[in-house]
Formats: sequence, C-alpha cells, structure tokens
Amino acid sequence: NVVPGSEEALSTPDVRGPDFRGDLDIGELLETYATTGFQATHLAEAIDIAERMQAEDATVYLTFTSNIVSSGLRETVASLVREGYVDVLITTSGSLTEDIIKTAKPFKMGEWDADEAELREKGINRLGNIYVPSDRYVWLEEFLYDFFDDFFAEKKVRTPTAFAREVGETLDDEDSVLKQAADNDVPVYCPALTDAEVGNFLYYYRQGYDSEIGIEILDDYDSLIEDGLLAGKTGLIAVGGGVPKHHAIMTNLFRGGADYAIYISTGMEGDGSLSGAPPNEAVSWGKIKDETETNYTQVEAEATLVFPLLVAGAFA
Amino acid sequence: NVVPGSEEALSTPDVRGPDFRGDLDIGELLETYATTGFQATHLAEAIDIAERMQAEDATVYLTFTSNIVSSGLRETVASLVREGYVDVLITTSGSLTEDIIKTAKPFKMGEWDADEAELREKGINRLGNIYVPSDRYVWLEEFLYDFFDDFFAEKKVRTPTAFAREVGETLDDEDSVLKQAADNDVPVYCPALTDAEVGNFLYYYRQGYDSEIGIEILDDYDSLIEDGLLAGKTGLIAVGGGVPKHHAIMTNLFRGGADYAIYISTGMEGDGSLSGAPPNEAVSWGKIKDETETNYTQVEAEATLVFPLLVAGAFA
Amino acid sequence: NVVPGSEEALSTPDVRGPDFRGDLDIGELLETYATTGFQATHLAEAIDIAERMQAEDATVYLTFTSNIVSSGLRETVASLVREGYVDVLITTSGSLTEDIIKTAKPFKMGEWDADEAELREKGINRLGNIYVPSDRYVWLEEFLYDFFDDFFAEKKVRTPTAFAREVGETLDDEDSVLKQAADNDVPVYCPALTDAEVGNFLYYYRQGYDSEIGIEILDDYDSLIEDGLLAGKTGLIAVGGGVPKHHAIMTNLFRGGADYAIYISTGMEGDGSLSGAPPNEAVSWGKIKDETETNYTQVEAEATLVFPLLVAGAFA
Amino acid sequence: NVVPGSEEALSTPDVRGPDFRGDLDIGELLETYATTGFQATHLAEAIDIAERMQAEDATVYLTFTSNIVSSGLRETVASLVREGYVDVLITTSGSLTEDIIKTAKPFKMGEWDADEAELREKGINRLGNIYVPSDRYVWLEEFLYDFFDDFFAEKKVRTPTAFAREVGETLDDEDSVLKQAADNDVPVYCPALTDAEVGNFLYYYRQGYDSEIGIEILDDYDSLIEDGLLAGKTGLIAVGGGVPKHHAIMTNLFRGGADYAIYISTGMEGDGSLSGAPPNEAVSWGKIKDETETNYTQVEAEATLVFPLLVAGAFA
Ligand SMILES: NC(=O)c1ccc[n+]([C@@H]2O[C@H](COP(=O)([O-])OP(=O)(O)OC[C@H]3O[C@@H](n4cnc5c(N)ncnc54)[C@H](O)[C@@H]3O)[C@@H](O)[C@H]2O)c1
Ligand SMILES: NC(=O)c1ccc[n+]([C@@H]2O[C@H](COP(=O)([O-])OP(=O)(O)OC[C@H]3O[C@@H](n4cnc5c(N)ncnc54)[C@H](O)[C@@H]3O)[C@@H](O)[C@H]2O)c1
Repeated sequence: NVVPGSEEALSTPDVRGPDFRGDLDIGELLETYATTGFQATHLAEAIDIAERMQAEDATVYLTFTSNIVSSGLRETVASLVREGYVDVLITTSGSLTEDIIKTAKPFKMGEWDADEAELREKGINRLGNIYVPSDRYVWLEEFLYDFFDDFFAEKKVRTPTAFAREVGETLDDEDSVLKQAADNDVPVYCPALTDAEVGNFLYYYRQGYDSEIGIEILDDYDSLIEDGLLAGKTGLIAVGGGVPKHHAIMTNLFRGGADYAIYISTGMEGDGSLSGAPPNEAVSWGKIKDETETNYTQVEAEATLVFPLLVAGAFA
Repeated sequence: NVVPGSEEALSTPDVRGPDFRGDLDIGELLETYATTGFQATHLAEAIDIAERMQAEDATVYLTFTSNIVSSGLRETVASLVREGYVDVLITTSGSLTEDIIKTAKPFKMGEWDADEAELREKGINRLGNIYVPSDRYVWLEEFLYDFFDDFFAEKKVRTPTAFAREVGETLDDEDSVLKQAADNDVPVYCPALTDAEVGNFLYYYRQGYDSEIGIEILDDYDSLIEDGLLAGKTGLIAVGGGVPKHHAIMTNLFRGGADYAIYISTGMEGDGSLSGAPPNEAVSWGKIKDETETNYTQVEAEATLVFPLLVAGAFA
Repeated sequence: NVVPGSEEALSTPDVRGPDFRGDLDIGELLETYATTGFQATHLAEAIDIAERMQAEDATVYLTFTSNIVSSGLRETVASLVREGYVDVLITTSGSLTEDIIKTAKPFKMGEWDADEAELREKGINRLGNIYVPSDRYVWLEEFLYDFFDDFFAEKKVRTPTAFAREVGETLDDEDSVLKQAADNDVPVYCPALTDAEVGNFLYYYRQGYDSEIGIEILDDYDSLIEDGLLAGKTGLIAVGGGVPKHHAIMTNLFRGGADYAIYISTGMEGDGSLSGAPPNEAVSWGKIKDETETNYTQVEAEATLVFPLLVAGAFA
Repeated sequence: NVVPGSEEALSTPDVRGPDFRGDLDIGELLETYATTGFQATHLAEAIDIAERMQAEDATVYLTFTSNIVSSGLRETVASLVREGYVDVLITTSGSLTEDIIKTAKPFKMGEWDADEAELREKGINRLGNIYVPSDRYVWLEEFLYDFFDDFFAEKKVRTPTAFAREVGETLDDEDSVLKQAADNDVPVYCPALTDAEVGNFLYYYRQGYDSEIGIEILDDYDSLIEDGLLAGKTGLIAVGGGVPKHHAIMTNLFRGGADYAIYISTGMEGDGSLSGAPPNEAVSWGKIKDETETNYTQVEAEATLVFPLLVAGAFA
C-alpha cells in the first residue's frame, strides 16, 4: 500500500534539467525544458502544441503587437509566412507602418536610458532600446502618397486587409511580413489601422488630396469570422496581447473555440486585462476549446527571448 | 565647505510617510504619499499634475482599456464625465459593449480560480474575478438590433463616435459612461469597434439584415486630431495601455505634444511595448512635451487600487 | 426554472465601484473597493481579514523587506508597533541599518533616472527614487562601534533579536521601528543580519577590535517557532517577500498553519519563487490553514500605494 | 553634412533578427539575439560579458534563489561548478535542503492550479508546477540527524559554509550542487541557514539531542569579503534576487565594486526592492564598477527560460 506523500502516488516525470554533458543541438536543449519546471516547461509545451497544429493541418493564426515588427522578430514572422506555416495574421497599425519602412531603411540599435532631449535634437525617436531616425517618416510619407493615389483610385472606401495586401505587393524585400503575406495569400487583419503613422498620413492625404477616402472595418471582420468557420482545426499563436490577441479568440468563438492556443506574454493576470488573461479564462467564454490533452499553454516571457526558440523547436 | 555625500548637497524633501497620529482624511493621507517614495510618490505627482490640468483648463483626454468598464471603475469614469472633468474619451470596444449591458443588468463578483468547465455549464463567463452571465448577451443582441435599425437608417456607413453618441442618448442610467458622454458632449473614440460583442452583433446584423452597413474610421481620426489642434493645453490620463493610450499620444503629436500626462499601468518597460512604455519614451517622439517642471508621471499599479485615489485627490 | 447563465444562478454581489456622489471618508471609499473587482477587491478582503485578526486577538506577524524602511512606510510600521497592533516583526538587515540611521539623519527624495556617475561624485547613494548621502554611513559607523562595545561586553556571541532589542533601547525617536519594538516588547527577527551595512561594520569591528564576536541564529529560530506554538490564533501580514515572508510561513507550519494571511507583493507567480507564491501555495504545505471562510488574500501591488490604506482601513 | 534624424548620425548596428534561412546551431541563433532588440539583446550582452569574465580569469560569483534548485536548473548549476566555471556560490537555505533531497529522491512535475486540499490529502507539497511528496522530508530528517551527530561532534557552533561543505562531501550524486562544490573547493554561502527544512531539523535536533549547538554567521561574512579582496577581477551572475544577490554586491563594495555583473531577474524596478534593482543602481553605491565598455547587463526573464541559453552560449 502506498504511503501518503510518496512518489508512487505520482506518475509524472522527474524534474530534471540540462546538465551540459556532451554537445546539445537546439532541439535537444529544448527537450530538456519539458522537465525543467516553471516557464521552461511551458515553452516545451508550446513547441509540442505547435507541432500538433502542423500535424493536423490546422489553420494557424499568428497575432502580434507592433513592437514585434520594430524588433528583429520581424524577420522571424516573415519566415513563418514564407515557409507556409501560418495562415492568418492579425496585428496593429505600427506593424504595417514599420514593416514598410524597413523595406527601405533599417531601424538601429539604441539605449533604453538615452537622453531624450538629445535624441529629439538629433531627430531620433526611441522605441525601447531601438532607434528610429526621423528621416524614415519623411521617406514613408512620399512612399504612401504615391501608393494612396493608386489605392484609392479604384474605390474611395477601402479595408485594412486590402491596404496590407496591395502595399505588400509593391514591396521588394524578402524579409517583409507584408510582402510575404501578399505573395503567400495570407490576410493581414488590422482593425485600428489609424493608430500609427499610416493613420497620420491617411489624415494628411485626406485633408490635402481627397476628402472622400475612408477605411471600413466591418468587411474585414466578416472575413476573419469566415476564416474560422471554414477551417477544419484552428490554432492560435498570440505573441503579446491587445486587439490582435482578442480579435483571434473572439472570432474563434463563432466556431466553438480554437482547437489549440499558445500565448507568449508579459501581461499580468491580476489586472483583469485581456492582455494578461491566461488561456483558461478564454475557455469559460468558449473562445478556446477544453480538451483532455493539453491544447493550450502560455509562456510568461518577453517575446524576443522565446519566440525564436518556439520557431526553432517547432517550425524549423 | 560641504562634505561629499552630506545632505547639504540636496534640497529635496526628507523621506517621511504616514505615521497615523491623529485622524487623517483622504486628502491628508494622500499628501503624505509625496514623500513616501517609490510608487506612492508617483501617485502624489499624478494628483498634482491632474490639479494643474484643471487649473489651466486643459482639454483632458481620458483613455482606458475595456476591463476598466468591466470593473467598478465604470462608475468612477462616469462621474468624471458627469462633473465635467474630462473632455475626450478613448477606449476599446469591450468598454462600449459592457457599459451598455450594465445599464440593464449588473456584472457579478466572482473568483479567479473558478472551475472553468463548471462555469461553462452554468453559462457564466469569467473576466478575472468578475462573472458575466450569458443572458447579458442575449439581452444585448435584442437591444442592439433595435438600435441598429435606427442607427443605420439615416446612413449606411457610420463612425464609432456616432455609435457611442447615439447609443448613449438612448440609455437610462446615470452611471453609464456612454450616457454621461452623450449628455455632456464628450466624444468617445474607439477605432477597433469590431473587437468585442458589439462587433459580433454588427456581423450578425450585416449578415441577416443589411449587407451594406459599414463602420468607417478615418473620419473619427480627423476629429481626434482636430480636438488636439484646437485645444489650448492638453492633458492625458491613460488608465492602462493599448490602442487608447497610443491614440491619445499619437494625435497629440500634431500639436507638438501633450502638455500633461499621467499613466496608470501594469505594463513592463523592458518588453518594448507601447503599453509598457513610460512617458519619457513619448518625449523623444514629441508626443509629450518636455518641460522643466514635472509635467508627466506614471503610477505602476493596477488601476482599481489607485484610480479612485487619483479622483479623490484631484477631482472630488 | 433558472435559465443557464442568468444572474439567478449567482448569489454574489453586483460589481459596482465608487461613483463620487457626495463626500466619502477613507473608510467609505475603501468599502467601495470590495465590489470594484480585480485587486481593489483583494485590498478590501485584506482589510476584512486584518479586522478579524484583531477581533480574535491573534498573534500578528508583520514581515517586511528592507526597502519598506528605506521608504516612508517606516513611520507606518512604527505606528503599528506603537499602537500594539503587531506582535512579531521579521525583516532583513537593511531595515535595521536604515531604521537606526533615520533616527539621526533623514533619507532624501530623489530620482530613478539620476546620472549615476554624478551621484557617485557627490557621494549620494540611490535606492529607487530615494537618496542616501554617504555621511549617513560615516555616522552609523561611529554609532555602531560605541554600541558594539557594550553589546559584546557581556557575551561574545549574540543573536539578531538581541541586537535589535538592545540597539532599539538606545534610540531616541518615536518613529523608529526598533525603538517602538524594544519599548513594546515586540521581537525583531532577522536571520541574515550580515547582509547590509550592519554586517559590514560587524566585519570591521571583528577585524579591528575583537575577533571572537559572533552572531548565532539557531536560538532566534527556536524563539520564533515557540512564538507560534504558544499563540492562540496567528495572523501574517507579509509586505514583500524574501526571507521574512518565508520565515513566517515556515515557522507557522509547526502549529499547523497560520490562521490568517495577507500578502502585499509585486512578485510573479509564474517564476516559481517564494516571493511570488500566492497564499494558496502555502496551503498545500500546511503553512497557512484552509478554512471555509476566506482567511487569506494577496494584493498584487507596490506596498507604498496600499499598505497605508490597509492600516487606515483596519487599524486606525 | 549630416541631416538631423538620418541614419548617418548613428553608428550602431541595424536591428535584424533570426530569419531561419538555413540551419542554425545554438551559438549562431544566440548571435542573432544581439541585434534583435529588447531583452534578446540583453541576453546576447550577458553571454558576451560572461565570456569576458572567463577570458580575464575573474573570480565568478554565482548567486541563486532556492527555486532554482527546485527546478531542473539544479543540474545546470552543478555543471558550472563541475567544469570549474564558477568560484563562489551564494544561495538561500531551500537550495541546500532540496539539493540534498534530490540526491536520494527526485522532485516530480506538477500543475500550478492543482486542488490544494486534494494535494494535502495525498501528502504532496506544491512548488509552482513542481510537486514534492512529503516522504522526501521523512527521508531528510533521518539523513540530517545522522549527519548532525558528526557535524556537531567536533565543535558545537558551526557555520553555514561548513555545513554545506561537509554535507556535500557525503553526497553521492554527480548532479548535486553541494557535492560538486565540495569536490571543487567552491564555498557555498548561505547566511539565513535556518529559513528552510534544514533549519527545522536543526530546531528539532537542538530540542531533542543537543541544546548547545549553534550556527554562527560572522565568520562566513569575513570569508566572503576576503574572497573579493583577494580576487584579481570579479564577475557576478545573479540568478534571481534576494539575500544571495545582495550578499554578492555588498561584499564586492569592499574591493571597489564588481568588474562584471549579469542579472537574470523577474523583479520590478519600480517597487524599490533590492531584487528588482537593475545593475546601474549598484553603480551609485560602488557595488559594481562603472566602465566605458559594457560590463553589466540584466535580462528580464524567468531563469529557466534563459539561464540554459547563457550557459550554452558562454560556458559550453
Ligand atoms: N472586458 C474586456 O477586457 C474586453 C471585453 C471585450 C473585448 N475586449 C477587447 O480586447 C481588446 C484588448 O483589450 P484592451 O485593448 O482594452 O486592453 P488590454 O486589456 O489588452 O490591456 C492593455 C494593457 O493595459 C494595461 N492594463 C490593463 N488593465 C489594467 C489595469 N487594471 N491596471 C493597470 N493597467 C492595466 C496592461 O499593461 C495591459 O497590457 C480590445 O479590443 C477590447 O475591446 C476586452
Ligand atoms: N534598502 C534595501 O532594500 C536594502 C539595504 C541594505 C541591504 N539590503 C539587503 O538586501 C537583501 C534583499 O532584500 P530583501 O530580502 O529585504 O527584499 P527584496 O528587496 O529582495 O524583495 C523581495 C521581494 O519582495 C517583494 N517586494 C519588495 N518590495 C516591495 C514593495 N515595495 N511592494 C511590494 N512588494 C515588494 C518583491 O516581490 C521582491 O522580489 C536583504 O538581505 C537586505 O537586508 C536591502
């Protein structure tokens, strides 16, 4: 008979992490994460779930905040689209703005604690530890005005997905998220298209050139819901929170919940925010399905540290 | 001559907090926060800045995430509009959805670690430690269909601010944010109007009743920019981050930056997110002005704990 | 019969927060927190639990990290001891060091983002947004050497509680935690007494004056366990985490768990740390009792914001 | 002449992350982190600094919280000691307790949201998502009583480092931190030795067998200071905060500051805690040196995710 509190009562694996005896490749190192505990275990779960999304040919939604594109994860996102691993992108307007800029001019490494006054004098905008010199926006203005001439020529009122697709088609950079999305027929949803410099230049263009232009958002919402309704299985990978994450889970409600979900987030559960809400909160709403086998997980981490590992482990 | 490291070198106040000798009213207690250090000092700064916003008759932007309306801070936001302390509201779609519901049916207190399966069976949706029974959405559907009939009757393509204003006019609840906003002529901006149940019912209505309806967002962006351009001074109070916070700082760029800014946030600076970015990052972009006197601060805290204190200290 | 998802299924209160109609005193404002949701509800729970600790005449353990004494919460802690609300203090060595200094020379308000090189030149040490000029430590050295002469005269090997008590007896400042503790016969536990400037001056004293002195820690651990064993009911208030928090819950294990527990913490659950572990983790170990009525809660917040509110609500 | 806001003003690298074209080994992947931005850049900096610690043959202090040993990082820490990469260990008492247990019986993988009542019934203690069946402590009791008989035989009052060394010598497990430390002559500092089950069994032993035993902590503090004074260069790797982190920086003050420092932490700067304080705060105190080349960095992350990467990048 089993003594209370002895290991016989437990069929789970032993906790045991990497001991660095012998050489490890990335895959082997990440395998040790499964039994390391805390967040490492969640990352290993995320890799496992992402592999199951692929095995079942799920429609994969990748949602991400704008700063992902500010960072070097832009190239990583583009690679997933390029290789056909993701089917739907949802993001915010800064992503579109900055992906376009980066096709022409790079962002530069910077410092968190820079002297803000000095930066302003030099015309350098700071985004965490990344610098964006102001001439990027001068270039963008010209680029977008040219593009808007065509974009609003055929029709005065357009959608965010049409903007993303048509601008993506004009871009000449294999590391561009928008270009890869356009080439691979992956829609890019972005309901709050005004909320970044793209919006600012839409404002100026509307004031200066054509007061009748508009951006309509119900059409895209219909399509996004249909994407979910038509899918066999769906899997979500939410890198960060906000509107993109919620847009994905809310529209998966129409199909009875996402089959798989991976969140990578620095959000705090205790503030009651959507961004901080863990996957199980979405279960009570029917936004994520509740299965016997683990079909969702959350890695509490800043994405630049772990998203490349998820890709290396599950998609490369 | 001054010994290095002696206090003579410093003209700042002594650190000293509440000693609970004698009775304190709220105002007196909050005054002790100024010299308590860490975040207490930031809250005292926030109160001071909010008072200066009022003294200079600044146009005050209040931005907030949807969960603020899920929580009891809904009544607090409504009170600020009611008393004329704020001039522009920017939020996300969950706020609109839930403010409407609450005019008819309350949300209920719940538990963070509830059994999700059991909740689903009972038809209860969980939002942190708040419960939303499903019948709220049944009620909302009927309410909104009625409203949409009128709303889209005059014009097929409408704006989020028009939605907020016209729905607000129909509501009969003095604690409603939308009702107070409509009554006091305070615009409610919400670019990503689709991203909540309001969006879902727009989808159903469009599918079932009128395929030509639309929500256009450039018009509102123009108005929001004009609000800033026409203002003498502007002051921002950002409760939480996301699109609402960025919408406020981005559009203040057009006028050379906000004169005052208060952030209340649980965001993490080190993830490079907009939600976590402290006010000084906005200075490098010209979104907030850089003054010699302190004109911005951030309180790192969950809003339900400190927003009522800010209101009690500066606005009551 | 009850429709699934209707409010009939729920007997919990409505979510409703402060509406700022009419004047509110602190107590009334804090009462509205109970139904505001998220962390506000936890603060209201904490106040309720602290009142029950008092009603049942529990032995109250107050544990706190050193930075609490760096901040203005020093005066708040001293007030609780002065008024007889707490019975056992557990802290770290920085608290003892800084409480002594403050009886002679204040800390000064400072800036988080000060120029560190400039501060060093001026002999100013930075502790968050608090400055400690170096002359404080010059003063402390002399003070402690005098004290050590007496302290180690009677016996070469002493305990941290003896240090705290005997030094407290010499202090002349009604806002001193150590003085109030000595006067009110409240023990101050601090196992890692070396880990602050007190430890540094013990090192110098030992090197320079008496190589046989020592600090022994088992004796104190015995007393702390006995404090718990002899108590009728026990209640914990843990302000921050670390050794003080764990020392309290670990020693309450000997009596079958603490009857009440309130945590105030910024720690993160997901890192598996003791500092971030919520009260329910302690239940599985038997460190906190599991009752039907809520007997523990955690407020996720920086302490300077909420600890004065807890005191104002429950103890003033 | 340079146009303001153009990239000519900036000599920093372009932001660019992993694009997953072609195969990457761990080292190559981590190299892409340098220009990915946000925390990834900090991890790349940490690897670079750790390599410079080795190149200059610095005395390397590794400090870690107890939960590191609860997790699979125990094996990783042991590997660094085994391979001679670290010279001084500083930790808390849970590490010693659990390292000893794991030489005989493993910890098991578990669930964060387990039913605490059920766990208690089964005699399973939960530590995040790790389970520790109670029989581990039954085994430990017997083991320690045997050990104490010898340990206190020669002398009644001992030190934490002596405990660690002598217990380490008896252990038979190549993955044990204490065993590797004993074998490789690496001291293990732990001032608050009472604050875990080792302390509990010291209490029982003292009550039951020998009331004269004691643990003295000044002697160890002397040695730790001397370790720093005798070192050519010093480098700190602080995994988590608390007493271990502070013990390392405080004692490096005696030598004018650590030459290199790497922090891995989930702490929050804004709470004014020692655990959350970034390396530059230590610079104002002279605890870390200020150099022109980057000699310190902090990775804001849960350690199980990134510590193995630091080891793989810099030490393997
Ligand atoms: N009740 C809801 O939260 C709800 C309901 C329906 C739809 N949605 C939708 O989800 C999407 C994302 O929500 P969001 O953009 O409103 O914000 P969010 O919940 O994603 O929060 C954004 C950030 O604000 C900060 N924050 C949030 N709550 C806070 C608090 N209590 N205290 C301090 N800081 C806080 C956090 O840093 C957070 O990361 C929106 O489109 C919204 O319409 C939300
Ligand atoms: N002023 C100082 O902080 C100071 C001075 C000298 C020595 N030290 C030494 O540093 C070591 C580590 O310090 P510690 O153990 O006192 O704690 P700590 O500062 O390391 O904090 C431990 C945890 O408590 C929580 N916490 C801290 N401050 C908080 C706050 N304001 N609000 C809410 N939660 C908070 C956080 O989760 C944190 O991780 C100790 O040995 C101490 O003696 C500290």
